[in-house]
Amino acid sequence: MQEIYLDNAATAKPLPEAVEAFNAALREYGNPSSLHGAGIRAKETLEKARAEVANAFGAAAKEIVFTSGGSESNNHALRGAFRTHCRRGKQIIISEGEHPSAENPVRALAEEYGAEVTAAPTKGGVLDINALREALKKPTALVCVMLANNETGAIYDITAVREAIDSSGTGAHFHCDAVQAFLKCGEYKKIKLYCDTASVSAHKIGGVRGVGALYIKNGVRLPAYILGGGQEGGLRSGTENVAGAAAFAAACRAHKEGAAANLRKAFTNVLAAECPFAAFHIPPRHVDSIVSVSFPGVRSEVLLNALSAEGIYISAGSACSASRKGVSRVMEAFGLPKPELESAVRISFGEENTEEECVYAAKRIAENAKRLKR
Amino acid sequence: MQEIYLDNAATAKPLPEAVEAFNAALREYGNPSSLHGAGIRAKETLEKARAEVANAFGAAAKEIVFTSGGSESNNHALRGAFRTHCRRGKQIIISEGEHPSAENPVRALAEEYGAEVTAAPTKGGVLDINALREALKKPTALVCVMLANNETGAIYDITAVREAIDSSGTGAHFHCDAVQAFLKCGEYKKIKLYCDTASVSAHKIGGVRGVGALYIKNGVRLPAYILGGGQEGGLRSGTENVAGAAAFAAACRAHKEGAAANLRKAFTNVLAAECPFAAFHIPPRHVDSIVSVSFPGVRSEVLLNALSAEGIYISAGSACSASRKGVSRVMEAFGLPKPELESAVRISFGEENTEEECVYAAKRIAENAKRLKR
Repeated sequence: MQEIYLDNAATAKPLPEAVEAFNAALREYGNPSSLHGAGIRAKETLEKARAEVANAFGAAAKEIVFTSGGSESNNHALRGAFRTHCRRGKQIIISEGEHPSAENPVRALAEEYGAEVTAAPTKGGVLDINALREALKKPTALVCVMLANNETGAIYDITAVREAIDSSGTGAHFHCDAVQAFLKCGEYKKIKLYCDTASVSAHKIGGVRGVGALYIKNGVRLPAYILGGGQEGGLRSGTENVAGAAAFAAACRAHKEGAAANLRKAFTNVLAAECPFAAFHIPPRHVDSIVSVSFPGVRSEVLLNALSAEGIYISAGSACSASRKGVSRVMEAFGLPKPELESAVRISFGEENTEEECVYAAKRIAENAKRLKR
Repeated sequence: MQEIYLDNAATAKPLPEAVEAFNAALREYGNPSSLHGAGIRAKETLEKARAEVANAFGAAAKEIVFTSGGSESNNHALRGAFRTHCRRGKQIIISEGEHPSAENPVRALAEEYGAEVTAAPTKGGVLDINALREALKKPTALVCVMLANNETGAIYDITAVREAIDSSGTGAHFHCDAVQAFLKCGEYKKIKLYCDTASVSAHKIGGVRGVGALYIKNGVRLPAYILGGGQEGGLRSGTENVAGAAAFAAACRAHKEGAAANLRKAFTNVLAAECPFAAFHIPPRHVDSIVSVSFPGVRSEVLLNALSAEGIYISAGSACSASRKGVSRVMEAFGLPKPELESAVRISFGEENTEEECVYAAKRIAENAKRLKR
C-alpha cells in the first residue's frame, strides 16, 4: 500500500540529508568532553552543528543549548525561569492551548510553588493582547506564549507580547515554544529580538528524534535542569548527542523556504471544491504547514481511521494529546461549536510531501467525509 | 594514523548492529502517539525495544522508562525519589565518588530543600557498609550508590546496601547508577532484586547517544521529570526516540559476555611487565572493562597527550570531570597518595577492541611513561 503521510506536525520523516549527517557524525565516535584526538574531533563536530542551528535563528552559537527535544526545552525554560523570577511575582501568564509540555510544567509550578496561572484567550487563533496586558497589571514571573499553535497553525504576535511585557514594568521572563514555527514561517526570526528563551525540536523539521534546542538570549540567566558533568555550558549535563546535533544542523540547511505554501493551496482548493461542508479553521496569521478543518457529522477518529486504512495518515488534534478522551482544548479555545469540535482534524505538510500526494489525499478525505457523514 | 580507542567508559563506538537498527527504525517514521498506521508501527517498534532492554535487566517491560541518557535518569530518579520520600527524613546517603550526574543533583537538593548529605567512604574501591549502616540510624529519604564506579571500575555491594536499608527500618529509597555496570559484570542482574530505581545509558554499551533508561521497580512511585504529552506511562514526556531505543535494544542483543576479561588480562600483563613502576589500582571486585593505573612522576594529562599524538586514546579520570581543575575526587576517595593521584589514568575496553590493539597500547603506554618520568 502506498502511504501518504500528512501528520508532519506530529513528527516529520527524517530528511535524507539529516540521516546522512547522523551516520557521518557517528564515525566521529569520541566524547566531546574527552581531551584526546577523538574527543577533540567530536567537539568540533558538535560546535559546528551548534553554529549552524544558531545561524537559523540568527543567534549566536553560545545562545543555543542542545537538549533532548522540545518537551525538555519547555520544562527547562519554564521551571528555570520561574525559579529565577518568582520573587517578582507568582503569576504565570500562558496562552490558551499551549502544548502540554508547556502547560503541564506551568500547572505543576502552581501545585508545587503556588504559582498563579492566567490564560489569555486565543479565540479564532488570535492571542488576546488586551487580556495579556490586563493580566500584566499584576506582578508576573513569567509569560509563556507559543509562536505557532500545533493544532491550528495560528501564529501569535510575539512582538505585541514583548511590548506588553516591557510596558508593564513587571520584568517578566518571556518564554516561547517555537517548535511548530521554527523554519516554517518568517516570524521565527523575531525570536532573537523579542524572546528571553525559546524551544525548538529537530524532528519536526526533518532531523532525528531525541534532539532539540533551547535558545537562551545572551545575558538571560537560567539554572540547569539536568545536572552532572557540566556539558552545554553547565546548563544541560549528559554526554552530548553529537550525531543528533549534526542531523539537526543538516535539517536546518536542507530546509526549503515556502514549500508548504504550494502544498497547502493545492490541498485546500481541492478539498473545498469536493466537500462543500468542510469547515476550515483559518487563523488570520498561520504557518502554511498546518491545516485545521472540521467535517460536522463525521467524528474525527472515525475519519482518521478510515483514511489510515487507505494509507493516508492525518491527525485528530496533536499526537501529544491524541490519547486523551474528549475534545481538544486548543480547538475549544479557538471557539468551535460542538459539531465542529468533535470533527476537527489536522493535516500537516512536510518537506517530503508532493503536490500530487496532497491533491490525492484531499480527494480521498472529501470522499470519505461525504460517505461517513451521518 | 591508525587509532586505538581505549576510552570506552567515556563513550563506546556504536556497534554496527546498533547503527543498522537505528537506520531501520528511522524508516518507521511515525510518532508512536499517533493513532494511524504509521504511528501504530512506530509504537510496536518502541515496545519491542523496551521489552528487549527490560529482558537484559531480567525486568518487566513496564519497569523500563526510556530517557535521554544516564544523566537524565539519575536526575529524574534522585529528585523524584527525594520529593516522594523527604517526609521520612532529610538525609541522603551517597557513596564517595558518585558520578557528577548523581552527586550534583543530590548537592542541589541540599541547597534547595535542606537535604543533609552523608557520603560513605569507598577506600580501596570498597564501599564502607558500616559507615552506611551508621548513617542509616538517622531518618533517611534516599540512598544512592552506584553499581560500578566509572573511574576505578570498583563494583560496590548493592546486596549489602539493600540489607542495610531493610534492617534500618528507614524505608529509604535505593537508587543505583548502573551506567558502567550494565552488561559489564554479572552484578547488574541484581538490580531488579535490590534497587528501587537504576540508571543505564545506551552509548556506554555500543548504542547511540541521547538514549538511556530508568529502571523503576514495579510498585515504586516516582513523579515525572519532564512533563507534557504523557509519553512513557506519564513519567517522561516528549516524542519517543524510537530509533534510538531500537539501537539500544540491538546493542543489548549484540553484547558479548566476558569479552573485556581477555583484553584486560592481555593489557595488564604487558603493561606490568614493561613498566615496573606502574601502580595498578585494583578494587577487590571490579568490572573488567576499566583499568585504573598510575605512573608516579608522570602527570596524567602529559601522558594522555603524548598517547593522543600517537592515536592512542585513554583518559585521565572520567570525561565528565576531565575539564575540572585538579585531581579526581574518586581517586582521592580510593585513597591514593599524591604522586599516584596526579598520575592516574583510566584505560577502558569496548566490544570493538582487539587483543592485539590492547597489547600494542600497553607497550606504547609503558614506553611513554618511562620516557616522560621526571
